[in-house]
Amino acid sequence: MAYELYYWPTIPGRGEFVRLALEESAVEYVDVARRSGADAGVQALMRLLAQAGPHPPFAPPVLRADKLLIAQTANILAYLGAHHGLAPADEAGRVWTNQLQLTVADLVDEVHDTHHPIASALYYEEQRTEAARRSEHFLASRLPKYLGYFERVLEQAPAPGAYLAGGSLTYADLSVFQAIDGLEYAFPRAMSRESPRYPRLTALCERVRTRPRIAAYLASPRRLQYGEQGIFRHYPELDPA
Amino acid sequence: MAYELYYWPTIPGRGEFVRLALEESAVEYVDVARRSGADAGVQALMRLLAQAGPHPPFAPPVLRADKLLIAQTANILAYLGAHHGLAPADEAGRVWTNQLQLTVADLVDEVHDTHHPIASALYYEEQRTEAARRSEHFLASRLPKYLGYFERVLEQAPAPGAYLAGGSLTYADLSVFQAIDGLEYAFPRAMSRESPRYPRLTALCERVRTRPRIAAYLASPRRLQYGEQGIFRHYPELDPA
Repeated sequence: MAYELYYWPTIPGRGEFVRLALEESAVEYVDVARRSGADAGVQALMRLLAQAGPHPPFAPPVLRADKLLIAQTANILAYLGAHHGLAPADEAGRVWTNQLQLTVADLVDEVHDTHHPIASALYYEEQRTEAARRSEHFLASRLPKYLGYFERVLEQAPAPGAYLAGGSLTYADLSVFQAIDGLEYAFPRAMSRESPRYPRLTALCERVRTRPRIAAYLASPRRLQYGEQGIFRHYPELDPA
Repeated sequence: MAYELYYWPTIPGRGEFVRLALEESAVEYVDVARRSGADAGVQALMRLLAQAGPHPPFAPPVLRADKLLIAQTANILAYLGAHHGLAPADEAGRVWTNQLQLTVADLVDEVHDTHHPIASALYYEEQRTEAARRSEHFLASRLPKYLGYFERVLEQAPAPGAYLAGGSLTYADLSVFQAIDGLEYAFPRAMSRESPRYPRLTALCERVRTRPRIAAYLASPRRLQYGEQGIFRHYPELDPA
């Protein structure tokens, strides 16, 4: 049975981390809210969130995997990683990959809050002043801390030069690629200043980007573009020269 | 070998979610940064964070479990849950418990940002205006959303009245208890208004609080008090009548 992904149909957002794992796994999946029809579209997503089953999701993305309904991005990825060879099979490797993913999730939360430091329910325009202040701190201290961390992981890895969890690709590599890709869209000036300091991380992202299935996906209409909604947004005033 | 927990020695913080699981499991552990001596104290935590091993933690809490060094609260709990009967053994139950825990983690992040909406590196006093605005939105819409969600989980559970993942306690129950306990400290007025709407959640927290090992722990000096540092802080101006 094909997987069913439920996520907002117009933004890459957190759903994109799941899409990359599905694409790299070359499994069949339906991006439900991007389809039209009675059982599809954003209405299908809303119905799923309101459903009365025993394991209700708090928020999308949600993956239907046969009888399981799985929410929380890192949780979905741990499942896909275990079932499709995108995570090490041994406990130490599995725990480490999950740890990396949760650190990516923390970074993504902080990126979201650069433009929404007060409330998700408000427009950016209603929190511009606070967003400018938060972004300044994010770019000055948090962004280098995260980038430096992933660079250090690659430097200290037992198999240097390969992937974050060793010689084989995991979903954490896909997620780090997506986070960096989104950051380059949102903060092009800051990233062009920062990136030269993290050559291993840059090389990792390039290795991910050029994997055959990922490259084909990125060039396809299935890959949603960044815009003025979602997590990764470009507001020039938040990314000064 | 005893587990070693590395976390800030003066706040419950995120470390408390790990402590509760260790206490309920009745396993031997050392709360390293709260001990004195050459291999202990906050210096031991700082050394651990700077160490050059292959799996560096990004931030505490960190658990040393024999040869594994595990960071990220939800990741540590998934490990402890699997090894000490604090999570279902089947995949569906394990995935669900992790999903609940990650939702608690999101709530905890939002609680932190009520008093630190701009930057963790700044004092609260440097972001009071923004904190008041963020707290207002948190209390008006986010808090009821999270509390209502956990109430709904208990209502829709196949074994109503027991625990979040069925008839047996999991680490997610301990974590929901800790989040609610912290919220009651931080926002006593808001919580006294909100709580009556969530009777199942209130009853769950009481079941956790009165479990023999948890009750003994809460009454012991091992349980750190909330204060003016850490995630759960009480600023009366953020919790209006």
